[in-house]
Amino acid sequence: MKSFNSKLSEIIESKKSCLCVGLDMNPDAFDSSSLKNLKEHTFKVIDATREFAVAYKPNFAFFERWGAAGFAWLEETVLYIGDEHIKIADAKRGDIGNTAVQYAESVFKHFGFDSVTINPYMGEDSIRPFIRDTEKGVFILCRTSNPSAKDFQNKLIEGKPLFHEVAMLARNLNKFDNIGLVIGATALEELSQIRKIVPELPLLIPGIGAQGGDLEQSVQVSNKTGVGLINVSRAISFAGKMTSSDIYNAAKKYHQNIKMVL
Amino acid sequence: MKSFNSKLSEIIESKKSCLCVGLDMNPDAFDSSSLKNLKEHTFKVIDATREFAVAYKPNFAFFERWGAAGFAWLEETVLYIGDEHIKIADAKRGDIGNTAVQYAESVFKHFGFDSVTINPYMGEDSIRPFIRDTEKGVFILCRTSNPSAKDFQNKLIEGKPLFHEVAMLARNLNKFDNIGLVIGATALEELSQIRKIVPELPLLIPGIGAQGGDLEQSVQVSNKTGVGLINVSRAISFAGKMTSSDIYNAAKKYHQNIKMVL
Repeated sequence: MKSFNSKLSEIIESKKSCLCVGLDMNPDAFDSSSLKNLKEHTFKVIDATREFAVAYKPNFAFFERWGAAGFAWLEETVLYIGDEHIKIADAKRGDIGNTAVQYAESVFKHFGFDSVTINPYMGEDSIRPFIRDTEKGVFILCRTSNPSAKDFQNKLIEGKPLFHEVAMLARNLNKFDNIGLVIGATALEELSQIRKIVPELPLLIPGIGAQGGDLEQSVQVSNKTGVGLINVSRAISFAGKMTSSDIYNAAKKYHQNIKMVL
Repeated sequence: MKSFNSKLSEIIESKKSCLCVGLDMNPDAFDSSSLKNLKEHTFKVIDATREFAVAYKPNFAFFERWGAAGFAWLEETVLYIGDEHIKIADAKRGDIGNTAVQYAESVFKHFGFDSVTINPYMGEDSIRPFIRDTEKGVFILCRTSNPSAKDFQNKLIEGKPLFHEVAMLARNLNKFDNIGLVIGATALEELSQIRKIVPELPLLIPGIGAQGGDLEQSVQVSNKTGVGLINVSRAISFAGKMTSSDIYNAAKKYHQNIKMVL
Protein backbone atom coordinates (compact mmCIF):
# COMPACT_ATOMS: atom_id res chain seq x y z
CA MET A 1 0.00 0.00 0.00
CA LYS A 2 1.37 3.35 -1.06
CA SER A 3 0.85 6.34 1.22
CA PHE A 4 -0.99 9.35 -0.16
CA ASN A 5 2.03 11.59 0.25
CA SER A 6 4.37 9.24 -1.67
CA LYS A 7 1.80 8.78 -4.42
CA LEU A 8 1.60 12.57 -4.73
CA SER A 9 5.40 12.94 -4.84
CA GLU A 10 5.71 10.24 -7.48
CA ILE A 11 3.16 11.72 -9.84
CA ILE A 12 4.74 15.17 -9.43
CA GLU A 13 8.14 13.67 -10.20
CA SER A 14 6.96 11.68 -13.21
CA LYS A 15 4.93 14.50 -14.78
CA LYS A 16 7.48 17.20 -13.89
CA SER A 17 4.54 19.34 -12.85
CA CYS A 18 3.04 20.52 -9.58
CA LEU A 19 -0.05 22.10 -11.10
CA CYS A 20 -3.41 21.46 -9.47
CA VAL A 21 -6.42 22.59 -11.48
CA GLY A 22 -9.19 23.91 -9.26
CA LEU A 23 -12.71 23.27 -10.52
CA ASP A 24 -14.71 26.22 -9.20
CA MET A 25 -17.52 26.28 -11.71
CA ASN A 26 -18.94 29.71 -11.09
CA PRO A 27 -22.19 30.19 -13.04
CA ASP A 28 -21.50 33.95 -13.19
CA ALA A 29 -18.72 33.24 -15.68
CA PHE A 30 -21.30 32.30 -18.32
CA ASP A 31 -23.72 34.47 -20.24
CA SER A 32 -26.48 31.97 -19.75
CA SER A 33 -25.69 29.40 -17.12
CA SER A 34 -27.41 26.07 -16.79
CA LEU A 35 -26.24 22.93 -15.07
CA LYS A 36 -25.78 21.40 -18.52
CA ASN A 37 -23.44 24.22 -19.63
CA LEU A 38 -21.46 23.98 -16.44
CA LYS A 39 -21.12 20.23 -16.68
CA GLU A 40 -19.91 20.42 -20.28
CA HIS A 41 -17.48 23.14 -19.34
CA THR A 42 -16.09 21.07 -16.45
CA PHE A 43 -15.34 18.17 -18.78
CA LYS A 44 -13.83 20.56 -21.32
CA VAL A 45 -11.50 21.99 -18.65
CA ILE A 46 -10.45 18.50 -17.54
CA ASP A 47 -9.73 17.31 -21.08
CA ALA A 48 -7.84 20.48 -22.00
CA THR A 49 -5.55 20.28 -18.97
CA ARG A 50 -4.83 16.55 -18.45
CA GLU A 51 -1.37 16.91 -19.92
CA PHE A 52 -0.24 19.54 -17.40
CA ALA A 53 -2.23 18.84 -14.25
CA VAL A 54 -1.11 16.43 -11.55
CA ALA A 55 -4.27 17.00 -9.52
CA TYR A 56 -7.84 18.25 -9.84
CA LYS A 57 -9.58 20.00 -7.00
CA PRO A 58 -13.36 20.31 -7.36
CA ASN A 59 -14.68 22.98 -5.00
CA PHE A 60 -17.77 21.48 -3.32
CA ALA A 61 -19.58 24.81 -2.91
CA PHE A 62 -20.07 25.19 -6.64
CA PHE A 63 -21.65 21.74 -6.85
CA GLU A 64 -23.68 21.89 -3.63
CA ARG A 65 -25.41 25.07 -4.65
CA TRP A 66 -27.38 22.98 -7.17
CA GLY A 67 -28.38 20.40 -4.52
CA ALA A 68 -28.86 16.77 -5.54
CA ALA A 69 -28.36 17.60 -9.23
CA GLY A 70 -25.06 19.28 -8.37
CA PHE A 71 -23.90 16.26 -6.42
CA ALA A 72 -24.79 13.99 -9.35
CA TRP A 73 -22.61 16.26 -11.51
CA LEU A 74 -19.81 15.97 -8.89
CA GLU A 75 -20.08 12.17 -8.99
CA GLU A 76 -19.74 12.28 -12.78
CA THR A 77 -16.84 14.71 -12.53
CA VAL A 78 -14.82 12.43 -10.24
CA LEU A 79 -15.37 9.52 -12.64
CA TYR A 80 -14.47 11.71 -15.59
CA ILE A 81 -11.15 12.72 -14.02
CA GLY A 82 -10.23 9.04 -13.71
CA ASP A 83 -7.25 7.50 -11.94
CA GLU A 84 -4.32 9.16 -13.69
CA HIS A 85 -4.60 12.29 -11.55
CA ILE A 86 -4.87 13.01 -7.83
CA LYS A 87 -8.42 13.99 -6.89
CA ILE A 88 -8.75 16.49 -4.04
CA ALA A 89 -12.16 17.24 -2.51
CA ASP A 90 -12.08 20.92 -1.63
CA ALA A 91 -14.74 20.60 1.04
CA LYS A 92 -13.06 22.15 4.13
CA ARG A 93 -14.79 19.73 6.48
CA GLY A 94 -14.49 19.73 10.25
CA ASP A 95 -16.86 18.22 12.80
CA ILE A 96 -17.01 15.99 15.90
CA GLY A 97 -15.75 12.42 15.58
CA ASN A 98 -18.90 10.50 14.66
CA THR A 99 -19.83 13.15 12.08
CA ALA A 100 -16.30 13.34 10.67
CA VAL A 101 -16.53 9.57 10.10
CA GLN A 102 -19.49 10.21 7.79
CA TYR A 103 -17.72 13.01 5.91
CA ALA A 104 -14.72 10.71 5.38
CA GLU A 105 -17.10 8.02 4.13
CA SER A 106 -18.60 10.58 1.75
CA VAL A 107 -15.44 11.96 0.16
CA PHE A 108 -13.29 8.82 0.10
CA LYS A 109 -15.76 5.97 -0.31
CA HIS A 110 -18.82 7.45 -1.95
CA PHE A 111 -17.21 10.01 -4.25
CA GLY A 112 -13.83 8.29 -4.53
CA PHE A 113 -11.54 11.25 -3.85
CA ASP A 114 -7.91 10.64 -2.83
CA SER A 115 -7.76 13.58 -0.47
CA VAL A 116 -9.84 16.27 1.21
CA THR A 117 -9.29 19.74 2.66
CA ILE A 118 -9.97 19.93 6.41
CA ASN A 119 -10.64 22.80 8.82
CA PRO A 120 -8.65 22.43 12.06
CA TYR A 121 -10.73 24.65 14.40
CA MET A 122 -12.28 21.67 16.22
CA GLY A 123 -8.93 19.97 16.89
CA GLU A 124 -7.38 16.55 16.62
CA ASP A 125 -10.43 14.30 17.05
CA SER A 126 -12.13 16.09 14.15
CA ILE A 127 -9.15 15.20 11.90
CA ARG A 128 -8.46 11.59 12.96
CA PRO A 129 -11.32 9.89 11.05
CA PHE A 130 -9.85 11.23 7.78
CA ILE A 131 -6.30 9.90 8.25
CA ARG A 132 -6.85 6.26 9.20
CA ASP A 133 -6.15 4.96 5.70
CA THR A 134 -2.62 5.74 4.50
CA GLU A 135 -3.78 5.77 0.87
CA LYS A 136 -6.17 8.66 1.55
CA GLY A 137 -4.85 12.07 2.51
CA VAL A 138 -5.87 15.41 4.00
CA PHE A 139 -4.77 18.98 3.50
CA ILE A 140 -5.40 20.86 6.73
CA LEU A 141 -6.14 24.60 6.45
CA CYS A 142 -3.15 26.31 8.02
CA ARG A 143 -2.78 29.86 6.63
CA THR A 144 -5.48 30.58 4.08
CA SER A 145 -5.31 32.94 1.11
CA ASN A 146 -8.14 35.34 1.98
CA PRO A 147 -7.61 38.83 3.47
CA SER A 148 -9.42 37.94 6.74
CA ALA A 149 -7.18 34.92 7.31
CA LYS A 150 -5.32 37.16 9.76
CA ASP A 151 -8.35 37.59 12.04
CA PHE A 152 -7.51 34.39 13.91
CA GLN A 153 -4.75 32.47 12.11
CA ASN A 154 -2.05 35.09 12.79
CA LYS A 155 -3.02 35.74 16.41
CA LEU A 156 -0.17 35.05 18.80
CA ILE A 157 -0.32 32.19 21.28
CA GLU A 158 2.63 32.39 23.65
CA GLY A 159 4.50 34.34 21.01
CA LYS A 160 3.68 32.04 18.11
CA PRO A 161 0.87 32.50 15.59
CA LEU A 162 -2.06 30.09 15.68
CA PHE A 163 -1.15 28.73 12.22
CA HIS A 164 2.17 27.52 13.67
CA GLU A 165 0.20 25.50 16.23
CA VAL A 166 -1.83 23.99 13.40
CA ALA A 167 1.34 23.10 11.48
CA MET A 168 2.79 21.44 14.59
CA LEU A 169 -0.35 19.40 15.19
CA ALA A 170 -0.26 18.28 11.55
CA ARG A 171 3.36 17.21 11.91
CA ASN A 172 2.58 15.22 15.07
CA LEU A 173 -0.43 13.52 13.50
CA ASN A 174 1.36 12.49 10.31
CA LYS A 175 2.04 8.86 11.34
CA PHE A 176 0.70 7.43 8.08
CA ASP A 177 2.39 9.86 5.69
CA ASN A 178 -0.90 11.28 4.46
CA ILE A 179 -1.14 14.81 5.86
CA GLY A 180 -0.45 18.08 4.09
CA LEU A 181 -1.25 21.74 4.73
CA VAL A 182 -3.08 24.51 2.85
CA ILE A 183 -1.14 27.78 2.67
CA GLY A 184 -2.19 30.71 0.50
CA ALA A 185 0.21 32.06 -2.12
CA THR A 186 -0.88 35.48 -0.86
CA ALA A 187 0.98 34.83 2.42
CA LEU A 188 4.61 34.33 1.39
CA GLU A 189 6.18 35.18 4.74
CA GLU A 190 3.91 32.64 6.46
CA LEU A 191 4.70 30.09 3.74
CA SER A 192 8.45 30.37 4.52
CA GLN A 193 7.78 29.97 8.23
CA ILE A 194 5.64 26.89 7.66
CA ARG A 195 8.22 25.28 5.38
CA LYS A 196 10.64 25.44 8.30
CA ILE A 197 8.19 23.81 10.72
CA VAL A 198 7.19 21.05 8.29
CA PRO A 199 10.07 20.66 5.80
CA GLU A 200 8.60 17.51 4.28
CA LEU A 201 4.83 17.83 4.39
CA PRO A 202 3.11 18.48 1.07
CA LEU A 203 1.66 21.96 0.76
CA LEU A 204 -1.42 22.83 -1.26
CA ILE A 205 -1.16 26.43 -2.38
CA PRO A 206 -4.23 28.31 -3.60
CA GLY A 207 -4.35 32.03 -4.29
CA ILE A 208 -2.53 32.09 -7.64
CA GLY A 209 -4.31 33.80 -10.53
CA ALA A 210 -7.47 35.72 -9.63
CA GLN A 211 -6.38 36.17 -5.99
CA GLY A 212 -3.04 37.68 -7.01
CA GLY A 213 -0.56 35.40 -5.21
CA ASP A 214 3.09 35.32 -6.34
CA LEU A 215 3.67 32.21 -8.47
CA GLU A 216 7.46 32.27 -8.65
CA GLN A 217 8.03 32.79 -4.94
CA SER A 218 5.35 30.26 -3.98
CA VAL A 219 6.81 27.55 -6.18
CA GLN A 220 10.32 28.23 -5.00
CA VAL A 221 9.69 28.35 -1.27
CA SER A 222 7.20 25.49 -1.13
CA ASN A 223 9.20 23.04 -3.26
CA LYS A 224 12.56 23.57 -1.58
CA THR A 225 12.36 20.63 0.83
CA GLY A 226 9.04 18.98 -0.04
CA VAL A 227 6.19 19.13 -2.46
CA GLY A 228 4.27 22.33 -3.18
CA LEU A 229 1.13 21.78 -5.18
CA ILE A 230 0.17 25.00 -6.94
CA ASN A 231 -3.58 25.41 -7.42
CA VAL A 232 -5.00 27.58 -10.18
CA SER A 233 -8.77 27.75 -10.60
CA ARG A 234 -10.38 30.69 -12.36
CA ALA A 235 -7.30 31.73 -14.36
CA ILE A 236 -7.37 28.35 -16.12
CA SER A 237 -11.05 27.32 -16.15
CA PHE A 238 -12.24 30.66 -17.44
CA ALA A 239 -9.18 31.66 -19.45
CA GLY A 240 -9.66 33.86 -22.50
CA LYS A 241 -12.84 33.02 -24.39
CA MET A 242 -13.13 29.75 -22.43
CA THR A 243 -12.44 27.64 -25.50
CA SER A 244 -10.52 24.37 -25.19
CA SER A 245 -7.46 25.97 -26.71
CA ASP A 246 -7.57 29.04 -24.45
CA ILE A 247 -7.83 26.72 -21.43
CA TYR A 248 -5.07 24.47 -22.78
CA ASN A 249 -2.79 27.43 -23.35
CA ALA A 250 -3.43 28.88 -19.90
CA ALA A 251 -2.62 25.54 -18.24
CA LYS A 252 0.47 25.18 -20.42
CA LYS A 253 1.66 28.66 -19.49
CA TYR A 254 1.29 27.97 -15.76
CA HIS A 255 2.98 24.61 -16.18
CA GLN A 256 5.93 26.16 -18.00
CA ASN A 257 6.27 29.04 -15.55
CA ILE A 258 6.28 26.56 -12.68
CA LYS A 259 8.81 24.32 -14.44
CA MET A 260 11.15 27.25 -15.02
CA VAL A 261 11.27 27.95 -11.31
CA LEU A 262 11.62 24.34 -10.18
CA MET B 1 -38.83 41.92 7.40
CA LYS B 2 -38.22 40.06 10.62
CA SER B 3 -34.64 39.32 11.62
CA PHE B 4 -33.61 35.71 12.12
CA ASN B 5 -32.85 36.27 15.80
CA SER B 6 -36.25 37.82 16.55
CA LYS B 7 -38.04 35.09 14.65
CA LEU B 8 -36.15 32.53 16.76
CA SER B 9 -37.01 34.33 20.02
CA GLU B 10 -40.68 34.57 19.06
CA ILE B 11 -41.09 30.89 18.25
CA ILE B 12 -39.29 29.94 21.48
CA GLU B 13 -41.60 32.26 23.41
CA SER B 14 -44.78 31.03 21.73
CA LYS B 15 -43.97 27.32 22.02
CA LYS B 16 -42.43 27.63 25.52
CA SER B 17 -39.69 25.36 24.29
CA CYS B 18 -36.05 25.74 23.31
CA LEU B 19 -35.61 22.22 21.99
CA CYS B 20 -33.78 21.71 18.70
CA VAL B 21 -34.00 18.19 17.28
CA GLY B 22 -30.79 17.21 15.51
CA LEU B 23 -31.23 14.93 12.52
CA ASP B 24 -28.04 12.84 12.46
CA MET B 25 -29.29 9.78 10.63
CA ASN B 26 -26.54 7.32 11.42
CA PRO B 27 -27.00 4.11 9.40
CA ASP B 28 -25.24 2.17 12.19
CA ALA B 29 -28.34 2.65 14.36
CA PHE B 30 -30.28 0.25 12.13
CA ASP B 31 -29.99 -3.51 11.76
CA SER B 32 -30.28 -3.23 8.03
CA SER B 33 -29.81 0.28 6.77
CA SER B 34 -30.91 1.49 3.39
CA LEU B 35 -31.56 5.00 2.23
CA LYS B 36 -35.27 4.15 2.19
CA ASN B 37 -35.22 3.11 5.88
CA LEU B 38 -33.29 6.21 6.86
CA LYS B 39 -35.65 8.48 4.95
CA GLU B 40 -38.73 6.93 6.54
CA HIS B 41 -37.11 7.20 9.95
CA THR B 42 -36.28 10.88 9.39
CA PHE B 43 -39.92 11.66 8.63
CA LYS B 44 -41.01 9.57 11.63
CA VAL B 45 -38.72 11.58 13.92
CA ILE B 46 -40.01 14.87 12.54
CA ASP B 47 -43.67 13.90 12.93
CA ALA B 48 -43.16 12.52 16.45
CA THR B 49 -41.44 15.67 17.70
CA ARG B 50 -43.27 18.57 15.99
CA GLU B 51 -45.13 19.41 19.19
CA PHE B 52 -41.98 19.95 21.26
CA ALA B 53 -39.32 21.12 18.79
CA VAL B 54 -38.78 24.75 17.87
CA ALA B 55 -36.05 23.86 15.41
CA TYR B 56 -34.69 20.98 13.34
CA LYS B 57 -31.01 20.65 12.56
CA PRO B 58 -30.17 18.17 9.78
CA ASN B 59 -26.49 17.24 9.97
CA PHE B 60 -25.18 17.43 6.38
CA ALA B 61 -22.56 14.69 6.84
CA PHE B 62 -25.20 12.00 7.21
CA PHE B 63 -26.84 13.08 3.96
CA GLU B 64 -23.68 13.75 1.96
CA ARG B 65 -22.29 10.29 2.60
CA TRP B 66 -24.94 9.01 0.16
CA GLY B 67 -23.99 11.54 -2.52
CA ALA B 68 -26.66 12.84 -4.88
CA ALA B 69 -29.28 10.46 -3.46
CA GLY B 70 -28.52 11.77 0.04
CA PHE B 71 -28.92 15.35 -1.11
CA ALA B 72 -32.27 14.49 -2.71
CA TRP B 73 -33.31 13.08 0.67
CA LEU B 74 -32.10 16.32 2.34
CA GLU B 75 -34.19 18.38 -0.10
CA GLU B 76 -37.23 16.27 0.81
CA THR B 77 -36.44 16.57 4.51
CA VAL B 78 -36.39 20.38 4.43
CA LEU B 79 -39.76 20.40 2.62
CA TYR B 80 -41.15 17.85 5.07
CA ILE B 81 -40.18 19.99 8.07
CA GLY B 82 -42.17 22.87 6.59
CA ASP B 83 -42.42 26.47 7.80
CA GLU B 84 -43.65 26.07 11.37
CA HIS B 85 -40.15 25.31 12.66
CA ILE B 86 -36.73 26.90 12.33
CA LYS B 87 -34.53 24.93 9.94
CA ILE B 88 -30.81 24.92 10.73
CA ALA B 89 -28.29 23.51 8.23
CA ASP B 90 -25.59 21.87 10.32
CA ALA B 91 -22.96 22.18 7.63
CA LYS B 92 -20.09 23.99 9.43
CA ARG B 93 -19.10 25.84 6.28
CA GLY B 94 -16.17 28.23 5.98
CA ASP B 95 -14.36 29.34 2.83
CA ILE B 96 -13.08 32.38 0.94
CA GLY B 97 -15.61 35.03 -0.10
CA ASN B 98 -16.57 33.90 -3.61
CA THR B 99 -16.94 30.30 -2.42
CA ALA B 100 -18.86 31.29 0.71
CA VAL B 101 -21.33 33.08 -1.61
CA GLN B 102 -22.07 29.71 -3.24
CA TYR B 103 -22.47 27.92 0.09
CA ALA B 104 -24.92 30.62 1.20
CA GLU B 105 -26.79 30.19 -2.09
CA SER B 106 -26.88 26.44 -1.41
CA VAL B 107 -28.22 26.41 2.15
CA PHE B 108 -30.52 29.44 2.01
CA LYS B 109 -31.78 29.52 -1.58
CA HIS B 110 -31.49 26.01 -2.90
CA PHE B 111 -32.33 24.02 0.23
CA GLY B 112 -34.38 26.73 1.95
CA PHE B 113 -32.80 26.64 5.41
CA ASP B 114 -33.24 29.58 7.79
CA SER B 115 -29.81 29.29 9.29
CA VAL B 116 -26.45 27.54 8.97
CA THR B 117 -23.54 26.63 11.24
CA ILE B 118 -20.27 28.33 10.25
CA ASN B 119 -16.61 27.66 11.05
CA PRO B 120 -14.74 30.89 11.94
CA TYR B 121 -11.13 29.80 11.23
CA MET B 122 -10.93 31.80 7.98
CA GLY B 123 -12.20 35.02 9.57
CA GLU B 124 -14.67 37.77 8.82
CA ASP B 125 -14.78 37.68 5.01
CA SER B 126 -15.68 33.97 5.14
CA ILE B 127 -18.73 34.83 7.31
CA ARG B 128 -20.04 37.97 5.59
CA PRO B 129 -21.74 36.29 2.60
CA PHE B 130 -24.00 34.41 5.03
CA ILE B 131 -25.26 37.41 7.00
CA ARG B 132 -26.34 39.81 4.28
CA ASP B 133 -30.01 38.94 4.60
CA THR B 134 -31.46 39.72 8.04
CA GLU B 135 -34.02 36.92 7.67
CA LYS B 136 -31.30 34.29 7.37
CA GLY B 137 -29.00 33.53 10.28
CA VAL B 138 -25.73 31.87 11.20
CA PHE B 139 -24.46 30.07 14.27
CA ILE B 140 -20.69 30.48 14.39
CA LEU B 141 -18.67 27.69 16.03
CA CYS B 142 -17.27 29.23 19.18
CA ARG B 143 -16.52 26.49 21.77
CA THR B 144 -17.46 23.09 20.42
CA SER B 145 -18.59 20.03 22.39
CA ASN B 146 -15.83 17.56 21.41
CA PRO B 147 -12.86 16.65 23.65
CA SER B 148 -10.29 18.10 21.21
CA ALA B 149 -12.08 21.46 21.14
CA LYS B 150 -9.38 22.60 23.58
CA ASP B 151 -6.54 22.02 21.08
CA PHE B 152 -7.03 25.47 19.60
CA GLN B 153 -10.21 27.07 20.93
CA ASN B 154 -8.94 27.39 24.51
CA LYS B 155 -5.45 28.60 23.59
CA LEU B 156 -4.67 32.00 25.10
CA ILE B 157 -4.23 35.06 22.94
CA GLU B 158 -3.00 37.96 25.05
CA GLY B 159 -4.49 36.27 28.08
CA LYS B 160 -7.87 35.49 26.49
CA PRO B 161 -8.87 32.19 24.91
CA LEU B 162 -9.39 32.06 21.16
CA PHE B 163 -13.11 31.34 21.58
CA HIS B 164 -13.47 34.74 23.29
CA GLU B 165 -12.04 36.36 20.17
CA VAL B 166 -14.59 34.49 18.09
CA ALA B 167 -17.42 35.64 20.37
CA MET B 168 -16.24 39.23 20.10
CA LEU B 169 -16.06 39.09 16.31
CA ALA B 170 -19.59 37.66 16.25
CA ARG B 171 -20.83 40.50 18.45
CA ASN B 172 -19.20 43.10 16.20
CA LEU B 173 -20.61 41.55 13.03
CA ASN B 174 -24.18 41.28 14.31
CA LYS B 175 -25.51 44.40 12.60
CA PHE B 176 -28.54 42.64 11.15
CA ASP B 177 -29.55 40.70 14.27
CA ASN B 178 -28.91 37.33 12.66
CA ILE B 179 -25.79 35.90 14.36
CA GLY B 180 -25.61 33.30 17.09
CA LEU B 181 -22.88 31.05 18.49
CA VAL B 182 -22.39 27.31 18.94
CA ILE B 183 -21.23 26.30 22.44
CA GLY B 184 -21.10 22.71 23.64
CA ALA B 185 -23.06 21.68 26.74
CA THR B 186 -19.90 19.79 27.69
CA ALA B 187 -18.13 23.13 28.29
CA LEU B 188 -20.15 24.82 31.05
CA GLU B 189 -17.43 27.13 32.30
CA GLU B 190 -16.86 28.40 28.75
CA LEU B 191 -20.62 28.77 28.29
CA SER B 192 -20.81 31.12 31.32
CA GLN B 193 -17.91 33.17 30.00
CA ILE B 194 -19.49 33.49 26.58
CA ARG B 195 -22.85 34.53 28.02
CA LYS B 196 -21.07 37.48 29.62
CA ILE B 197 -19.39 38.51 26.35
CA VAL B 198 -22.59 38.18 24.28
CA PRO B 199 -25.52 38.53 26.71
CA GLU B 200 -28.08 38.72 23.93
CA LEU B 201 -26.86 36.53 21.07
CA PRO B 202 -28.71 33.24 20.59
CA LEU B 203 -26.66 30.20 21.53
CA LEU B 204 -27.00 26.81 19.88
CA ILE B 205 -26.00 24.13 22.37
CA PRO B 206 -25.13 20.63 21.20
CA GLY B 207 -23.64 17.92 23.41
CA ILE B 208 -26.75 16.94 25.39
CA GLY B 209 -27.63 13.23 25.41
CA ALA B 210 -25.05 10.86 23.90
CA GLN B 211 -22.19 13.33 24.48
CA GLY B 212 -23.05 13.68 28.18
CA GLY B 213 -23.50 17.46 28.54
CA ASP B 214 -25.38 18.84 31.55
CA LEU B 215 -28.93 19.77 30.52
CA GLU B 216 -30.03 21.71 33.60
CA GLN B 217 -26.93 23.89 33.80
CA SER B 218 -26.85 24.48 30.04
CA VAL B 219 -30.46 25.61 29.93
CA GLN B 220 -30.07 27.84 32.97
CA VAL B 221 -26.86 29.60 31.97
CA SER B 222 -27.68 30.00 28.29
CA ASN B 223 -31.22 31.33 28.77
CA LYS B 224 -30.48 33.86 31.49
CA THR B 225 -30.10 36.89 29.24
CA GLY B 226 -30.83 35.53 25.77
CA VAL B 227 -31.97 32.47 23.94
CA GLY B 228 -30.29 29.10 24.41
CA LEU B 229 -31.37 26.53 21.87
CA ILE B 230 -30.75 23.04 23.25
CA ASN B 231 -29.94 20.46 20.59
CA VAL B 232 -30.60 16.77 21.14
CA SER B 233 -29.87 14.36 18.30
CA ARG B 234 -29.25 10.67 19.00
CA ALA B 235 -31.06 10.59 22.37
CA ILE B 236 -34.30 11.54 20.58
CA SER B 237 -33.94 10.12 17.04
CA PHE B 238 -32.83 6.71 18.27
CA ALA B 239 -34.69 6.61 21.61
CA GLY B 240 -35.76 3.23 22.97
CA LYS B 241 -36.91 0.90 20.20
CA MET B 242 -37.06 3.84 17.76
CA THR B 243 -40.86 3.68 17.51
CA SER B 244 -42.89 6.87 17.07
CA SER B 245 -44.01 6.70 20.67
CA ASP B 246 -40.51 6.14 22.05
CA ILE B 247 -39.29 9.14 20.04
CA TYR B 248 -42.32 11.22 21.09
CA ASN B 249 -41.74 10.36 24.76
CA ALA B 250 -38.03 11.17 24.59
CA ALA B 251 -38.74 14.57 23.03
CA LYS B 252 -41.49 15.21 25.60
CA LYS B 253 -39.15 14.34 28.47
CA TYR B 254 -36.45 16.72 27.20
CA HIS B 255 -39.05 19.41 26.62
CA GLN B 256 -40.42 19.04 30.15
CA ASN B 257 -36.98 18.95 31.76
CA ILE B 258 -36.06 22.12 29.89
CA LYS B 259 -39.33 23.81 30.84
CA MET B 260 -38.81 23.02 34.51
CA VAL B 261 -35.47 24.83 34.47
CA LEU B 262 -36.65 27.83 32.45
